[in-house]
Amino acid sequence: MSLGKQASIGFIGTGVMGKSMVRNLMKAGHELHVYSRTKSKADELIVEGAIWHDSPAELAHTVQVVISIVGYPHDVEELYLGDNGIVANAKPGTYLIDMTTSSPSLAQSIQQAASAKGCFSLDAPVSGGDVGAREARLSIMVGGDQAAFEAVKAIFEAMGTNIVYQGAAGAGQFTKMSNQIAIASNMMGVCEALSYAKKAGLDPQTVLKSIETGAAGSWSLSNLGPRMLAGNFEPGFFVKHFIKDLNIALQSAEEIGLDMHGVKLAKSLYEQLVQQGDQDCGTQALFKLYIS
Amino acid sequence: MSLGKQASIGFIGTGVMGKSMVRNLMKAGHELHVYSRTKSKADELIVEGAIWHDSPAELAHTVQVVISIVGYPHDVEELYLGDNGIVANAKPGTYLIDMTTSSPSLAQSIQQAASAKGCFSLDAPVSGGDVGAREARLSIMVGGDQAAFEAVKAIFEAMGTNIVYQGAAGAGQFTKMSNQIAIASNMMGVCEALSYAKKAGLDPQTVLKSIETGAAGSWSLSNLGPRMLAGNFEPGFFVKHFIKDLNIALQSAEEIGLDMHGVKLAKSLYEQLVQQGDQDCGTQALFKLYIS
Repeated sequence: MSLGKQASIGFIGTGVMGKSMVRNLMKAGHELHVYSRTKSKADELIVEGAIWHDSPAELAHTVQVVISIVGYPHDVEELYLGDNGIVANAKPGTYLIDMTTSSPSLAQSIQQAASAKGCFSLDAPVSGGDVGAREARLSIMVGGDQAAFEAVKAIFEAMGTNIVYQGAAGAGQFTKMSNQIAIASNMMGVCEALSYAKKAGLDPQTVLKSIETGAAGSWSLSNLGPRMLAGNFEPGFFVKHFIKDLNIALQSAEEIGLDMHGVKLAKSLYEQLVQQGDQDCGTQALFKLYIS
Repeated sequence: MSLGKQASIGFIGTGVMGKSMVRNLMKAGHELHVYSRTKSKADELIVEGAIWHDSPAELAHTVQVVISIVGYPHDVEELYLGDNGIVANAKPGTYLIDMTTSSPSLAQSIQQAASAKGCFSLDAPVSGGDVGAREARLSIMVGGDQAAFEAVKAIFEAMGTNIVYQGAAGAGQFTKMSNQIAIASNMMGVCEALSYAKKAGLDPQTVLKSIETGAAGSWSLSNLGPRMLAGNFEPGFFVKHFIKDLNIALQSAEEIGLDMHGVKLAKSLYEQLVQQGDQDCGTQALFKLYIS
């Protein structure tokens, strides 16, 4: 079964990412219901045709598909598993899709609770940032029941381009953690390479010409390196959110028996950044620690 | 002045890299003179038309351009600055090009000594590995006098494609160190991301599909990741040579007052690899530390 083109979708969390995702879903012809902890964040969407609900419970009871993208794992937990939460209020057969970057084990717990209620749960975190969300070019990493994934695939396709089913419940979150883990150490490498070039008296832009196309090449080097060198530390992706993700990754790694030296070091450096007040900078602000 | 198409070039160090570079220089029409500590490593090249010399001194005295690619900084130092070395024996006006990955401060010392003899010195380390050397697609990072660089540029072009003048003596080595520094931490990131995916029970190949094209993407993730997952730890680039480079980088960083946390951690992990006997593996063998 596929939900096809005109599903009723309840969307919870209309921040920077969520707002663009809601718009793309409306553009694809779906009926959008919205809830956000801060109502004003949904005002524009309501003007554009989204239907407001006063609680996640009311929203969940109304729609065929619930999608959420909120803050921290404890927000996700309360939203789905709390007394007035989504699982308690969704009708049997509802698809529950959490797109927050959150804990793999929480995704597994939600799946069990949802399944006991006759609902279908998917964990589907994204990468691609605000630009990817706006342009419907997100990478979406999906865990959960495969038939449920196939049923809502057209909905994902309205929001992203690189949509990959990764396995059972939690697999989407595991994949997103894998993504953040790869980024964490590489950010140190990019910062150290460019601060070294700069302190050595070279022109780091010219150094980039030599190194970015070879074995040292990376998305971060080519995309965040120039911002570092220009002193542009605007987010992008917030330092405070990256630390949240690294905490989830480290806890999850501990659960599966893996010691991640690089992530631990990167996290400690990012915490130094927070101590100097840079929690609302973009992740490329790590460069500051090296050139100060 | 450009040396043009038919320079007499003395090439010292005919290992895997050097052999391919000599062949590409002969193919470009130059007259090649060779010396190698182990003569048998030059046998094929002699058959192909290269002229053997019994010492670096004799070779240096004969040619217009000396190129070297040897082992460690102390080899480079002895070769250039020793009593029977290149600088002592080269005729004034000779171009001396060291393409070994070596110390920036040594490159500066050689430049001073060469200049005092009326010779032109360039440091010009490469990246691109054995394949890049064979296919004349090396990235060549050049430091030294810019006029000297222009004079021998056609010679570089016979060996590489991405040839960038980086600044005064040592700048080529600084750039190469910058390259190795960026790689060091990223290798931890790639290993941790893939070992995490594997231990979480995902299919790491499918995880790669989700993450390699986005913000976590890197040359190492896409090129060395699949080798790690296939259990292929063949070099590529030797662990023992990478440690050599990281030692040079750390010493050089200390000289310019930079603390590189990521490189230090990566070096300590690579030293663990050596302790378990993996010094002759490729750098992707770092993965072994995480999945064992």
